[in-house]
Amino acid sequence: MQWISKGNILIVGLGLMGGSYARALSRLGYHVAAIDTREESIAFALKEGIIMDGDTSVRSHLISEADAVIFGLYPKVLKEWIQEHQEQFRPGTMITDVTGVKSSVVYDVQEILRPDVEFIAAHPMAGREVYGVENSDDRMFHGANFIVTPTEKNTPEAVEWAKDLGRILGFRKISVLSPEEHDEMIAFVSQLTHCIAVTLMTCSDNHHLVDYTGDSFRDLTRIARINDVMWSELFLMNKKPLLDKMDRFLEEFQEFRDMLEAEDKEGMREKMRLSTERRAWFDKK
Amino acid sequence: MQWISKGNILIVGLGLMGGSYARALSRLGYHVAAIDTREESIAFALKEGIIMDGDTSVRSHLISEADAVIFGLYPKVLKEWIQEHQEQFRPGTMITDVTGVKSSVVYDVQEILRPDVEFIAAHPMAGREVYGVENSDDRMFHGANFIVTPTEKNTPEAVEWAKDLGRILGFRKISVLSPEEHDEMIAFVSQLTHCIAVTLMTCSDNHHLVDYTGDSFRDLTRIARINDVMWSELFLMNKKPLLDKMDRFLEEFQEFRDMLEAEDKEGMREKMRLSTERRAWFDKK
Repeated sequence: MQWISKGNILIVGLGLMGGSYARALSRLGYHVAAIDTREESIAFALKEGIIMDGDTSVRSHLISEADAVIFGLYPKVLKEWIQEHQEQFRPGTMITDVTGVKSSVVYDVQEILRPDVEFIAAHPMAGREVYGVENSDDRMFHGANFIVTPTEKNTPEAVEWAKDLGRILGFRKISVLSPEEHDEMIAFVSQLTHCIAVTLMTCSDNHHLVDYTGDSFRDLTRIARINDVMWSELFLMNKKPLLDKMDRFLEEFQEFRDMLEAEDKEGMREKMRLSTERRAWFDKK
Repeated sequence: MQWISKGNILIVGLGLMGGSYARALSRLGYHVAAIDTREESIAFALKEGIIMDGDTSVRSHLISEADAVIFGLYPKVLKEWIQEHQEQFRPGTMITDVTGVKSSVVYDVQEILRPDVEFIAAHPMAGREVYGVENSDDRMFHGANFIVTPTEKNTPEAVEWAKDLGRILGFRKISVLSPEEHDEMIAFVSQLTHCIAVTLMTCSDNHHLVDYTGDSFRDLTRIARINDVMWSELFLMNKKPLLDKMDRFLEEFQEFRDMLEAEDKEGMREKMRLSTERRAWFDKK
């Protein structure tokens, strides 16, 4: 399927992310349908004009009519869904996902998938601290990164198709990484930071500090409002890379702590100068 | 000195914070003068109308003419300055500071201070990642917290005077804490978060991640651009409370890490739910 042809898109799992994809694609003129077991989600999306057709059953004519299927499901449910319902795909269907971990999903899905359809994985690096199609909003894609994570099993055409999807959804930067590179990267920039934010909130009962809190504490804990079902699953599915990053962080934090205990002012200043120098790179983009 | 009388204010140390105080107070009609050893700072502030008089010498008629003196110096320099130059204060002068640590400053200053002047400590919880009077801007006070930290040696009049100062500078919330309460609080909400941000930048050479970085990593490392001279001094002057908070954070982070290793999903989810519940408090204010 070429994006220029304005084909039939099916979203399976119409939550915050699936709903935001649906909004963007509908506005661009694609025929967007959705399957979700939650009836209210389908009803809401139809009423709002986010989708043109919808179903709560996993046995649906919408599946065989789709040129492309976008899965907005949690990783484990996604694998089960493919296993149980893939016979309904039309030959040639292009399939993608929005999952935040890749190695533990992509190879398994490609392993069990019918040979006459293709699964190309992608991770839209956008999100909000709210859930559901009711909160969907594709403006969160603007300025965000979209990562396509092909394997040896993918065709160049599928990689281009997924990159084009990121572009038409409005993402700022489209990149291609291997599933392993993606998972290493995401363990550091996203999962480790969420672990830190959660720990800052759980390490002390700090309600009484609300009155004295400045921007820095609020900045570091914004992402401490977290979907426990989704993130615990993502952490466990990326266990090895995340443990590595957590251990590296712990080691470095301990070193800084020991410098303070030893009153090694010059050592602390050197860390701060390195940190300042490195952080400047992140302002330039 | 009552704030209503529009007296003579002297700022000693005309950097980002001293300069921002000067801007706000000049605009309100006070006669603001400044002493700073850096000639360019005085010249800039005079030219911009931020101050009405200035001097680079620490032996200055401006000191004896001041009704109130505001020190915008680093903690150690502040103590040395008081020791060496306090004979120049006019009897009855009200003195305050902007220092980010309190126990290690306030008692020492009050101990060595002449009995006919009063030092009331305060911490304006505002700041920016830039330096110097050239970057001063009192808009950073709006929405921020101002903490007055009196001791038994302070008069009720001085406490009210300092609270009024916070109000006229434009701070959102004025609080009174003991120096010890202040230092415990600041160790957690400000110093610990800066240690975490620095560690996130120094624990891995992450230049190559710039392209993939989303909001969460940028949020957690914004304060990693840090003035190494000032912050190393502040950390060392608050060593005990900060070490306590760092150890508590390390312990809790290790616990979360061990849950991941043991694949204790329910344990992780419980931490995430607690974190989500607690973080909501910080949105309500």
